[in-house]
Amino acid sequence: MSDERMERLRERIGRIGYGGDYNPEQWPEDVWTDDARLMRAAGVSMVSVGIFGWAVVEPKPRAFDFTVFDKVLDVLADADVSACLATMTASPPPWLAARHPETLPTRADGTRLWPGGRQHYCPSSPIYRDHAVRLVEEVANRYGDHPSLALWHIGNEYGCHVAACYCDVSAASFRDWLRARYGDVETLNDAWSTAFWSQHYASFDEVQPPRTAPTFPNPAQQLDYARFSSDELLDCFRAEKEVLRRRTPDVPVTTNFVPFFEPPGKSLDLFAWAPQLDVVSYDSYPNPHDPEAAVRAALGYDTMRGLRDGEPWLLLEQAPSAVNWRPVNGPKPPGVMSLWSWQAVAHGADAVMFFQWRQSRGGAEKFHSAMVPHGGEDTRVFREVRELGQSLAAAPALVGSIPRRADVAIVLDWSNWWAFELDSHPCSPERLIDVLHAHYAPLYDAGVACDIVPPTADLSAYRLVVVPNLYLVDQAAAANIAAYVEGGGTLLMSCFSGIVDGSDRIHLGGYPAPFRQLLGLRVEEFWPLAEGDSVRLVGDLTGDAATWSEDIRLEGADVVASFATGELAGGPAVTQHEFGRGTAYYVGTRPDPSTMRRLLDRARLTAEVDPVLPELPEQVYARVRETPGGVAYTILLNHGPTEVSVPLPSPMRDALIDGPPSDAVRLAPRGVAVLVAD
Amino acid sequence: MSDERMERLRERIGRIGYGGDYNPEQWPEDVWTDDARLMRAAGVSMVSVGIFGWAVVEPKPRAFDFTVFDKVLDVLADADVSACLATMTASPPPWLAARHPETLPTRADGTRLWPGGRQHYCPSSPIYRDHAVRLVEEVANRYGDHPSLALWHIGNEYGCHVAACYCDVSAASFRDWLRARYGDVETLNDAWSTAFWSQHYASFDEVQPPRTAPTFPNPAQQLDYARFSSDELLDCFRAEKEVLRRRTPDVPVTTNFVPFFEPPGKSLDLFAWAPQLDVVSYDSYPNPHDPEAAVRAALGYDTMRGLRDGEPWLLLEQAPSAVNWRPVNGPKPPGVMSLWSWQAVAHGADAVMFFQWRQSRGGAEKFHSAMVPHGGEDTRVFREVRELGQSLAAAPALVGSIPRRADVAIVLDWSNWWAFELDSHPCSPERLIDVLHAHYAPLYDAGVACDIVPPTADLSAYRLVVVPNLYLVDQAAAANIAAYVEGGGTLLMSCFSGIVDGSDRIHLGGYPAPFRQLLGLRVEEFWPLAEGDSVRLVGDLTGDAATWSEDIRLEGADVVASFATGELAGGPAVTQHEFGRGTAYYVGTRPDPSTMRRLLDRARLTAEVDPVLPELPEQVYARVRETPGGVAYTILLNHGPTEVSVPLPSPMRDALIDGPPSDAVRLAPRGVAVLVAD
Amino acid sequence: MSDERMERLRERIGRIGYGGDYNPEQWPEDVWTDDARLMRAAGVSMVSVGIFGWAVVEPKPRAFDFTVFDKVLDVLADADVSACLATMTASPPPWLAARHPETLPTRADGTRLWPGGRQHYCPSSPIYRDHAVRLVEEVANRYGDHPSLALWHIGNEYGCHVAACYCDVSAASFRDWLRARYGDVETLNDAWSTAFWSQHYASFDEVQPPRTAPTFPNPAQQLDYARFSSDELLDCFRAEKEVLRRRTPDVPVTTNFVPFFEPPGKSLDLFAWAPQLDVVSYDSYPNPHDPEAAVRAALGYDTMRGLRDGEPWLLLEQAPSAVNWRPVNGPKPPGVMSLWSWQAVAHGADAVMFFQWRQSRGGAEKFHSAMVPHGGEDTRVFREVRELGQSLAAAPALVGSIPRRADVAIVLDWSNWWAFELDSHPCSPERLIDVLHAHYAPLYDAGVACDIVPPTADLSAYRLVVVPNLYLVDQAAAANIAAYVEGGGTLLMSCFSGIVDGSDRIHLGGYPAPFRQLLGLRVEEFWPLAEGDSVRLVGDLTGDAATWSEDIRLEGADVVASFATGELAGGPAVTQHEFGRGTAYYVGTRPDPSTMRRLLDRARLTAEVDPVLPELPEQVYARVRETPGGVAYTILLNHGPTEVSVPLPSPMRDALIDGPPSDAVRLAPRGVAVLVAD
Repeated sequence: MSDERMERLRERIGRIGYGGDYNPEQWPEDVWTDDARLMRAAGVSMVSVGIFGWAVVEPKPRAFDFTVFDKVLDVLADADVSACLATMTASPPPWLAARHPETLPTRADGTRLWPGGRQHYCPSSPIYRDHAVRLVEEVANRYGDHPSLALWHIGNEYGCHVAACYCDVSAASFRDWLRARYGDVETLNDAWSTAFWSQHYASFDEVQPPRTAPTFPNPAQQLDYARFSSDELLDCFRAEKEVLRRRTPDVPVTTNFVPFFEPPGKSLDLFAWAPQLDVVSYDSYPNPHDPEAAVRAALGYDTMRGLRDGEPWLLLEQAPSAVNWRPVNGPKPPGVMSLWSWQAVAHGADAVMFFQWRQSRGGAEKFHSAMVPHGGEDTRVFREVRELGQSLAAAPALVGSIPRRADVAIVLDWSNWWAFELDSHPCSPERLIDVLHAHYAPLYDAGVACDIVPPTADLSAYRLVVVPNLYLVDQAAAANIAAYVEGGGTLLMSCFSGIVDGSDRIHLGGYPAPFRQLLGLRVEEFWPLAEGDSVRLVGDLTGDAATWSEDIRLEGADVVASFATGELAGGPAVTQHEFGRGTAYYVGTRPDPSTMRRLLDRARLTAEVDPVLPELPEQVYARVRETPGGVAYTILLNHGPTEVSVPLPSPMRDALIDGPPSDAVRLAPRGVAVLVAD
Repeated sequence: MSDERMERLRERIGRIGYGGDYNPEQWPEDVWTDDARLMRAAGVSMVSVGIFGWAVVEPKPRAFDFTVFDKVLDVLADADVSACLATMTASPPPWLAARHPETLPTRADGTRLWPGGRQHYCPSSPIYRDHAVRLVEEVANRYGDHPSLALWHIGNEYGCHVAACYCDVSAASFRDWLRARYGDVETLNDAWSTAFWSQHYASFDEVQPPRTAPTFPNPAQQLDYARFSSDELLDCFRAEKEVLRRRTPDVPVTTNFVPFFEPPGKSLDLFAWAPQLDVVSYDSYPNPHDPEAAVRAALGYDTMRGLRDGEPWLLLEQAPSAVNWRPVNGPKPPGVMSLWSWQAVAHGADAVMFFQWRQSRGGAEKFHSAMVPHGGEDTRVFREVRELGQSLAAAPALVGSIPRRADVAIVLDWSNWWAFELDSHPCSPERLIDVLHAHYAPLYDAGVACDIVPPTADLSAYRLVVVPNLYLVDQAAAANIAAYVEGGGTLLMSCFSGIVDGSDRIHLGGYPAPFRQLLGLRVEEFWPLAEGDSVRLVGDLTGDAATWSEDIRLEGADVVASFATGELAGGPAVTQHEFGRGTAYYVGTRPDPSTMRRLLDRARLTAEVDPVLPELPEQVYARVRETPGGVAYTILLNHGPTEVSVPLPSPMRDALIDGPPSDAVRLAPRGVAVLVAD
Repeated sequence: MSDERMERLRERIGRIGYGGDYNPEQWPEDVWTDDARLMRAAGVSMVSVGIFGWAVVEPKPRAFDFTVFDKVLDVLADADVSACLATMTASPPPWLAARHPETLPTRADGTRLWPGGRQHYCPSSPIYRDHAVRLVEEVANRYGDHPSLALWHIGNEYGCHVAACYCDVSAASFRDWLRARYGDVETLNDAWSTAFWSQHYASFDEVQPPRTAPTFPNPAQQLDYARFSSDELLDCFRAEKEVLRRRTPDVPVTTNFVPFFEPPGKSLDLFAWAPQLDVVSYDSYPNPHDPEAAVRAALGYDTMRGLRDGEPWLLLEQAPSAVNWRPVNGPKPPGVMSLWSWQAVAHGADAVMFFQWRQSRGGAEKFHSAMVPHGGEDTRVFREVRELGQSLAAAPALVGSIPRRADVAIVLDWSNWWAFELDSHPCSPERLIDVLHAHYAPLYDAGVACDIVPPTADLSAYRLVVVPNLYLVDQAAAANIAAYVEGGGTLLMSCFSGIVDGSDRIHLGGYPAPFRQLLGLRVEEFWPLAEGDSVRLVGDLTGDAATWSEDIRLEGADVVASFATGELAGGPAVTQHEFGRGTAYYVGTRPDPSTMRRLLDRARLTAEVDPVLPELPEQVYARVRETPGGVAYTILLNHGPTEVSVPLPSPMRDALIDGPPSDAVRLAPRGVAVLVAD
C-alpha cells in the first residue's frame, strides 16, 4: 500500500520535488499572488502548508474557520503546485494553555514550559490529543478531496523541543506503559536492578519518571523513559494518522525528522517510527561554519535512507542560506546550497525543500533565510533558488531511481544511543554521534558509500560491517553480527561494545561477553585516559589514540597494533580475529582521524571494498542511483572551491546539460554533474 | 519647577556635594557622634539616609517608630550635613513576605525569590505598593519640614536585582498594560506577528509573560515585557513621588540608577524615567582590575548627562576603594578614587558620594569599602576621602556650571538595546554595551567629548552623529537622522541598523529600508563570521575586522574600504555617501579598535571635530564646564601613573591651588587640575 | 566505654580489618556460596552489610521480611567474616515517597528531589525519622545477638547528596534550632546583623532558610543554616544510635564520612560528629588521574585521625580500581591500590575496606570497580585484592598501635570553612580545601608528619602550628593560639585570618584584631590580585605569589619578604614576630608551591621540626605507629614507579617478609615495608 501511495505521488510530481514551507497566513492576500508567480519562476512543485495553522483555523475552541487555507490551496492548485498539507497540530493556540494549563510540558526539575515558542504540549496529555485529533478530522474532511493535496504532513519535528515531559499525567502514562512492557512489577524490579540502592518497587503505582534526584537516577529507568517518550510521541502521530487513513486512504503520510547531529536528534527511535510513515522526511541544517558540515549531512542522509531499508526519502526542510537559531549563523556561500541539495539527492532524496518560502517579517525566525528573502527576488539567494529549481527539473529520470546499495554497513541503534550517553560511565563525556562520525568520515573521505542499518538487519549482502560502540546489545542482535562474520563477512567493532543488555545490565562472563568468541579476546578492564593524554600505537598499524583504552587479553585474536606508551604499554590496542569464514577487527581505543583512516583502509582491503568511483580528485564525491530499469545515474559533487576535471571509467554524458558523452567531465567550483552511460 | 527646586538645592549645598550612604541604624548611638566629627573632618555636605530603614521604622505592620531617624537627622542638622532622605521602600521587612508571600518576585522559570537579600518584591504587587505608599506618607509627614532634608531619595537602584517578575499578579498587570497599549487584541496580534508559530490570541486574557518556553519565545512579547517591566517600576516610583510632591512640593526628588556597564544596567528605559526626576542620580562602580574602567565610566557619565539634555547629575554612589560583589574585588590604588571622582565632575556630576559612610560590621556588604573603613580614620582610604573633600570644596564655582555641549552625539535607545540582544539573531552573542564602547572609546581616546542622545533628539547642533547598531528604529527616528545629514551633518552608522520597527518587525524593502537612501546602499545578506575568523579591509581605510560582515550593494555610496579576504572579498565593507548637504558613513563589519580609531579620525575630519584640548599627553583628558555667566572651567585629568606637563593654548590658573596663571600645568600622577582663564 | 567496645572489636578481628561493602541482595543465593569461598581466599575479615537493605526487609510499610539477611549473616558467620551491619536507613524504599512526598528534600531554588537515586529524604522530616527509627528497632532486635555482628554502620555517607533541605518542614525545624540557639529574637537580629538591608525580624516565625534570593543572602543566616543542617543530620544519626545503645550497649557504632576533597566534604561539622561515634570511619576516593592524589588522600586521613584526638580510624570504603561518578574514571594502575591502602594504615587506618565486594550487574554504580570484578577472580584486580589481604594479615601487631603524634599541627574548623566560602568576599573563588592543601603539601613532600586539630585544641605539645585562613575565629580560640606562641610555640598563620566572629561579624579594631598583638602588625586593606596577575617577593624569602595580597602596617613584626612589584611594592608580604617565648610568622599573600616549601622549611627550622625519617629518596614517605607496649612500626611507602633502596638509621626488619634485620631496605615500585627495630 505504501508503495502504491508513493508511486502515485512520484507520478504526480514527476521530478525531484522542489519547494518549501509555505506560510501565507503571515502575509496579506496580495502577496499570495506574487508568491504564485515566483513559485512558477523558481520551478516549485510542492510546498508544505499549514504547519502552524491551528490558531488560524480554530481561533477559539471548536470555532473552525478555513477561509484562509481554502483560498491558499486554490491558489496553489491554480499554480500547479502540490500541497504537502499539515495536520496543523504542531503548536497549539494560546487558548489551549489558557484553558488547560495541565497540557503544558514539565521538565525533569519541575519547570513548566509555557506558550510563547512552539510545541508546548505534554505528549501524554489526553486533552491535547483530543483537541489534536478533532482538528485533524476537520482538516481531513475539508481538504481530503482538494486537488492540490498530495501528501500529509503530520505534526512537525516531533520531539525537537520537548523530547519528554515529567508531569504527573506523563507519570501515569509511563506506569501504564511499564505495565504493558513488564506485566508484573517483579519483572520490572529485575530489569531495573532495583536491588541496588534500595529501589525495589512493591507496585507499579510507586514508579515515577526519572525526575531530578539527589544523585544519578536509575539508568534502566532513564532508558525506559527515553523509550516511553519516543513511544508517546509516536502515539500522537498514530492517532492523527488513523484519522487520515480513514478519510484519505490513498494519500501518503509523512512527518519530518529533526537534524541528526543536533542535540534533539536522538529523542525518537526512528527505526520504530519509520514503518509508520509512507515515506521518511528529514530536516537537514548543516552549519556552514563547520568544515565537516557535508560529512555530517551525508551521515544524516544515509541514516534516513536506512530507516526504510534503502528507500528514497524527502528533504523536507533545509535553509537556503543562514539559519537563525545557532549563536552565530553563517550563510551558505554561493553555490553551496545547490551543491548540498544535490548531495541530498545523491544520497537518496526525492525532494529538495526549504524552510521557508518567504522570509517572515516578524517572529522568532525572521532571520532564518528563505527562498524569497526580505530583499525580494533581486537577490543572490532567490537567483540560486531559481537556478537550482531549473537544474533539478533537468533530471526527471532520477525520480523512481533508488540509491545503489552500499558495500559497507554501519550499525546504529537508538536504545544503544540512549544507554551509551547515560551518566556514571567510565568516560561519560563521549557522545555517540561523534563516535559514529569518527567511523563514518574516513569511509566518506575515501569515496566509499555506506548504509546505516540496525543491528538486527540482514547483513549478508555487505562486504564490511562497522559497529561503533554498540554498548547495549541483546543476544539476538549479537548473534546476528557473529553470524555475519562466521558466514564470511568482515567486521570492524569499536571499544565498549557488547557490554549491557536491553535493560542496561552487564552481560556477565567477561567483557564483551556476547562478542568474546567472535573477537577472540577478553577485555579485563576499561582504562579511560585523562583529558589531554594520548597513547602511541605501534605494530602493523601505527598512530596515536586518546580518550579511551582497554586492558585486553587475547583469546585467539592477533594483534594489529599495541600500546607503546602509558600504563597499558605492550598490550593489544587493535586486534584481528579469523572467525568462521570471516574476519573481525576490534579497536580497543580511540585512534585519531588519520589513524582511523588507515585502519579502515586496511579493513576495506580485507573486505575488498572499493570507492564508488576510483581516482576521484580531492573533494569530489560520487554516489549512484539506479532506475528500476537498471539505468545508473552517477552524481558527481565537487565540494571544492576550484574547477576540477574528473576522468571517467567509461564515456558518459551529463544529464543536466545537453552534450555528447565524454570520458572526462569538468566540474565547476561547487559544481555538480549527473552522469549516465550513453 | 524642577529648575527652581534644583537651584535651591545647589544654593543650599553651595559646592559639589560630598558624602555617602549613611546607615547609622547599624551602629550604637555613641558611634553617631564620632560620625559627625569625622564628617566634618572630611568635608561632608550631604548624606543619603534611611535607604534600608523600613524595618527600623515599621518593625511590625503599621507600628511606626521613628526614634532612630529623629535622632539621626538632628545629629546631621547639628553637623550642618544635608540629608538625601530615602523613602525607605527599597527592601521590605521580613514581615511582609511572612504575611504575604504573594508579594515575592518570581523568575521566568517559576523560581520564587525569597527574603534574605534585598529588593524581594514583585513590582506589580498591590500589597507591596500599598505598604510602600503608606510608609512614604509617614516618612514625608514626619520629616517633610526637617531642617536637614534637602533631597528625596526614592527607592533604591530600581530593577538592579529584580528587573522583571513573572508571577500571575504581574501577568494580570501586563495584560492591562497591553490593553492600554494596543486597544484591541488584533492590533496586538499584528504587532507581535502571532501568525507565526500559531500564536494568535483570541483575547488579551490568553496572554502571559514570556515565561520559560520550549524554545525561543516571541520576540515582540519579550520586547514588550521589557517595556512593561520598566514601566511597572516607574509606576512604583511615581506612586511614591506623588506623596512627596503633595507634602513637600519644593523638595527635589531623585532615584539612583544602577551601573551602566553591568548586566542589570539595561533594565530601565532611562529616557522615559529621567523626566520624572528633578535630577538624575547614578551609581558608578568601575572595576579597578579593568584597564578600560575609566572609558566605561565616562560613557556612563555622558549617558547620565544625556538623560536630561545635558543637565548635571549626581554621582550618588561609588566605592572609596574595593567593592564586594564581583568574584575578585580589587581596591582602587592610591589617587584613583580622587581622579575618578573628578572625572565624574568633569563629565557633569554635581555631587560625589559613596556607598557608604562607615563600613558595615556584618551583613552581605561588610567587605565593600567605605569612607570610614573597619580600620578607622588612620587609614589610607579615610585620608584620601578627607583630601578629596577638601579638594572638591576648593572649586565651589563649579556648582551651577554645566558641561559644554559636545560636537559629537552618540545615539542610544532602550527599546533598541532590548531588541538588539534578543535571541535568534544572526549573531546573538553581541552585546550593545560592547558595541557602544567600541564606538565611544576611539573618540574618548582622541580627547573628543561626546553627548549621548536618543534617536529622536534634535541633532542639528552636532557636527558628527554616531549611530551604533540602531537595529530597532521607527520611521520618525529614522527620518530625524536622515534630516540631520540632509541638513549638512556627518553621520557614522554601524551595521545591522534600521532593521526592525518598534515591534521587532522587519522594515521591508531591502535592508536597511529606512536608511537605504540616506546611506546609498542596500544590504543583501548578513554575513556573520565564524568565531575566531577575521577579514582584511583594504582601500582608503585598511585594517582588520571580525564578528560581522554584510553583502552590500552600492546604490550611490562610495567605497571607503573593501573586504580583501573571505567569501565577500571585493565587496564594500565601509562606505561614504553624500546625502543632501551632509555625509553618511556606513560600517558593514566590526573593525578592530585601531581600525575604528582611524575610521573615526576620518569621520571627524569630514565633520571638522576637534578634541577638547589639542596636543594632550597620552592618558591626559580634558572636559569643560561653563557657568551661566560664561566662565569656562577646563578640568584636566592625568590617568597615567607618572607626572606630566601639559601645554595650554592660553595662560590659565588652577582653581584648586592658589597660583599665578601659566601656559603650562604640571599634573601629578593621577593628578587633577581645574583650569580657568585668568 | 567507647574504648572497651573498640578493644573488643580489635580483639575480634585480630588484624587490620579487610573487606568491603557486601550487597548480596543484588545476586541469587548460589552466588553467596561463591562469595564466601572468595572472601576466604582474599583474607576478608569484615564486610559492611545491608546499607541499601531497607526495601528488602520492609518491602511495604511495616511488613518486615528478614529472610535474605538471616541467610546472609549465617553465611558470613560460617565463613568467619564479621559483619559491619547497617541500620539500612540510608535510602528509603519507593513507597515512602509515594505515600509521603513531603519527605522528599528540596533545594534552595524550590526544586524537589525525587527517588531514583538515593538519600532522597528531608533530614528534618518527622515521617522519615519515625520510619527510620522503627526500622532500626527491628534490625537491632533481629540481629543484636547474631554471632556475626561486630560493628553497627549507622546510615551511610550522611550529607553526601543532600547536605541541606529548604522545605517548609526544614524551615520550621530551623526556627526551633534558632530559638534554642538565641533565646530571643533580638539576639538573633544582633548576630545576623539584620540592621543591614532592612532584615530585622520581629519574631522567629518570620525566619526562613536562605532560599534563592534576588541577591546575596544574609551571610550569618547562611552560616547558621550550614550549622543547623549538620545538626539535623546528626540528630538523625543520634536517634538511630539511641536504639542501638539500648539494645546492644556493647557493640560499637560508626558511620562513614564522605571524601574530604570532593564538594560535599564540608557539609558536616566532623568535630561535632566524631564524639558521637565509637570510631571514625572514612570513605576515600583519590582520583588516579590526579598527580596530587596521594597528598590529598593523606590530608583526609590525618583529618580523620584528628577527629578523635589521634585515635585510629576505619577506611570503610575505597575503590579497588576505578570509580564511576567522575566524568572520566581512570583505574588504579598495578600496585597503586595496595600502596594507597598501606598509606591509609600508615596514617592510622585500622581497617582497609572497599566499595564493594562484587561488582553490580545493574544500577548506577555498575562501572564502579569491586573486589570481585565483572570479570571474576581471574583478573588483575582480584589478584591484587588477594595479595593485599595476605599482606595486611602479615602484620597483625599493627592492630592496637596508634600513629605517633606529629610535631606539626594544622588547624581546621568547620564554621570557618563554611564562612570562608560564603559569597561577597574580597576574593570569592578561593576554596579552603585548596588553601589547606597549599599548606599541607610542602610538609608532606618534606616527609614531615602533621596532625589536624581544631583551633581550641591543646597545642602545647606541638613544635609548629600552621593556621591556614582562619577567617572566622572566636576570642577563646584566638586566645588559645596566642597562648601557644606566648608559651614558646612557633606559628605560621596565613592571610585573611582573624577577620570575623562566629556570626560572621568583623572583629573591629584593625584587621586581624584578635591576632594583631600576636603577629605584631595591622592589615589596612585587602588587595586581591586580578586573575592571572602575580607579584614578586624579595627579602629573606624570595619567590612569586598570586591571588591575594594585603596592605600591611608593621607593629613590631620583622619583614621576611616584601612585595617587589605591583601596587604594594615595598610593603611587607611575609613577616615574623617574636611573641612571648615563641615566634609567629604571617603570610600576607599566596606564595606559589616552591615558595611555600621554602617558607615552611624556614618555619620548621625555627621550630626544630624534622621529617619522620631523614634522607628518604624522592617519592618515599614514612609514618610511624606505636604499640601500647612501645614498639614502633615504621611504614615505608614507595610512591614512585621504580625500585629504590632506602638507608635506615638503625638495623630493622620488615614485618611483611621474614628476613634478617638490615640497615637498608629495597622497595619495589609502589612497594611497601613495615619496619620494626630488631
